[in-house]
Amino acid sequence: MAEPLRIGLLGRGTVGGAFADLLGSRAAAVEAATGRRPEIAGVLTREAGDFDEILERSDLIVELIGGTEPARDYVARALGAGRPVVTANKQLLAQHGEQLFGLAREAGVQLRFEAAVAGVIPIVRVIQESFGVTEIAKVFGIVNGTTNFILTEMAASGASYEEVLTRAQELGYAEADPTDDVNGADAAAKMAILARLAFHTPVTLDEVSYEGIERIEPDDIAYARELGLSLKLLGVAERREGGVSVRVFPCFLYGGHPLAPVAGPFNAVMVEAPEITEVTMSGPGAGGVQTASAVLGDVVSILSGDAPVHETRERLLIVTDVASSFYLHLAVADRPGVLARVAQVLGDEDVSVKSVVQQGTGEDARLVMVLHECLESRFAAALEAIDALDVLRAPPRAIRVIEEEFV
Amino acid sequence: MAEPLRIGLLGRGTVGGAFADLLGSRAAAVEAATGRRPEIAGVLTREAGDFDEILERSDLIVELIGGTEPARDYVARALGAGRPVVTANKQLLAQHGEQLFGLAREAGVQLRFEAAVAGVIPIVRVIQESFGVTEIAKVFGIVNGTTNFILTEMAASGASYEEVLTRAQELGYAEADPTDDVNGADAAAKMAILARLAFHTPVTLDEVSYEGIERIEPDDIAYARELGLSLKLLGVAERREGGVSVRVFPCFLYGGHPLAPVAGPFNAVMVEAPEITEVTMSGPGAGGVQTASAVLGDVVSILSGDAPVHETRERLLIVTDVASSFYLHLAVADRPGVLARVAQVLGDEDVSVKSVVQQGTGEDARLVMVLHECLESRFAAALEAIDALDVLRAPPRAIRVIEEEFV
Repeated sequence: MAEPLRIGLLGRGTVGGAFADLLGSRAAAVEAATGRRPEIAGVLTREAGDFDEILERSDLIVELIGGTEPARDYVARALGAGRPVVTANKQLLAQHGEQLFGLAREAGVQLRFEAAVAGVIPIVRVIQESFGVTEIAKVFGIVNGTTNFILTEMAASGASYEEVLTRAQELGYAEADPTDDVNGADAAAKMAILARLAFHTPVTLDEVSYEGIERIEPDDIAYARELGLSLKLLGVAERREGGVSVRVFPCFLYGGHPLAPVAGPFNAVMVEAPEITEVTMSGPGAGGVQTASAVLGDVVSILSGDAPVHETRERLLIVTDVASSFYLHLAVADRPGVLARVAQVLGDEDVSVKSVVQQGTGEDARLVMVLHECLESRFAAALEAIDALDVLRAPPRAIRVIEEEFV
Repeated sequence: MAEPLRIGLLGRGTVGGAFADLLGSRAAAVEAATGRRPEIAGVLTREAGDFDEILERSDLIVELIGGTEPARDYVARALGAGRPVVTANKQLLAQHGEQLFGLAREAGVQLRFEAAVAGVIPIVRVIQESFGVTEIAKVFGIVNGTTNFILTEMAASGASYEEVLTRAQELGYAEADPTDDVNGADAAAKMAILARLAFHTPVTLDEVSYEGIERIEPDDIAYARELGLSLKLLGVAERREGGVSVRVFPCFLYGGHPLAPVAGPFNAVMVEAPEITEVTMSGPGAGGVQTASAVLGDVVSILSGDAPVHETRERLLIVTDVASSFYLHLAVADRPGVLARVAQVLGDEDVSVKSVVQQGTGEDARLVMVLHECLESRFAAALEAIDALDVLRAPPRAIRVIEEEFV
């Protein structure tokens, strides 16, 4: 009979506890699939356990502490000691991926991290393995369940961001401190990881530009709905002339877009490439048992001897100024000539108007515009010039738009 | 430098040609990812090439002939000679899976088949690897692009099945002989394969019960739309008391169902399990380059040394009589007491009515009913009894329904 697989478990919070439970209930299935029975050789918590001792008696380390330190130190030491590692820690990989993948390569052991991105959706495996030699053009989607829940509720109820955030916290879909979710930082870390996998190039968190949903107003959603658009917080990693662009931003999608129906605390990721056209994968964002299930899948893959160490075989530039389409919402003075002055400023920056609707009168007059695609730097310059006009009653509000593709 | 990987290619039709082209353009990427450069060592077509000779000088066989013979013979001999095999041949695996997986196991080589199911969606890898030790409850979805195109067009245009089929043939979405697509046999073969993977039990094509879309009428779709339902040809493999049920049937879905928006020649598959909740994957059904891309992904996995041979570690019974909900369309005589007689017959078989709408008058009078879930055998008995009533102007039409879940 084969030796059992001894797992050193770092962390025993929600996910760590769920993993220990799942491992217990699925141990026989793991043994049937791989020939080795997994067992927990030791658990490190804040209160108890010694890392070196646990490492010594483990064949494999599962890191579920979260955060960068001491998680980085433990994972680095485990890999250095020749132990494969499974982690669900997106910050760790988005910030220290180069070091850790390098250590895994040197030691010839696996570092797996399916649970770090997009909850239960096996996007890491699909990009690394199914599409490992595919020339991927774009990976994008909804990779933060908290913000998708909030935007869905705002659209359904017309309530304000603050009201819905409070409700999300009561329901457990948002944390007490929701900052990293709502400002886009969490999604940015996930997109750094996906961009690395898709384009085989190092991408770190500080190279991802991100915006959150804190400044979205209910009337943006209401106006956009009149145009047949729905609002999502998108992460986008794509090849652009000269390199790759990796960004997170709120974005209006046309009604027929595959991501438009993704509602509530769900994630969804699309992969586009000429030879596959597109694949969309969706499922619930992280929950304890769902994340634990992804971790267990990685453990089984290591036991099965799957997959090489992840390699970054390219060194692509990060492109920050890309072309986008925008929705523009202006609270304006209700007098003749206002539209002409706004259009003039846009024209000066080569930004052309696709559609414009005038809403309300007097103190409630607004221009709601959808613009044709333009370089974001030109749009930012136009926005600054518009903000300086004396015809605005409030700062301009701009949100990106992905419109219907005419394919 | 490592030896090149010599690939013996069986078949050079649409997919075979696309695979040879793709291999040429992605050879450097394959070498970068795996350390070995792939090359075509020989091509077997109907007109040229000798199988034994090609086998002799190949490290790996790619089977893209289709059909069961001589494909089965070639694959069996390749596995017997210790060569890993990649195939896109669903009929082969649905009918001869036991033999071929057994040969692969004996020889200790891989038999991979991502391209056999659901086009470009990597559902085989996800079920086998990501969810390899997950207790999957249900795998279901739209696994035939031709029929989904036809149903989408019928719903959009109100045209008849025959008219839309002709259009699908003109557009290349349906073959000259569409029989296997429209009668459900193609989807049944794919579901046999998915059921085997999901439940680790042998399932062959002849154990899958299937119905097609040939008898769907435009007014079924129109009436159902009034109820907020859309029509799909579903393949469903699920655990049921006593074993597993594997079926293909046209089915109405409520509007909020994740598969409802899947339109045109697309495929989509959902996997449900307690520990993952659900994952949905969608993408275009088979095209030449898409299928070739899935084949290439399998070649890379074999080169990477991934994944064990597929094992069936269970022997589950195939359950054929399961509970379903039905939509029932009856062209009836327009006179008092008809509904009472129909309801009586349904009640005799313990089938209860959830909703009923009377449509039209005189020669156009119809009863459109949605029934509560009941055993299909009881429903079939009721249907037979209704058909024997003297109040019907045409045979009854019944279609399964998956209604809104109240979660």
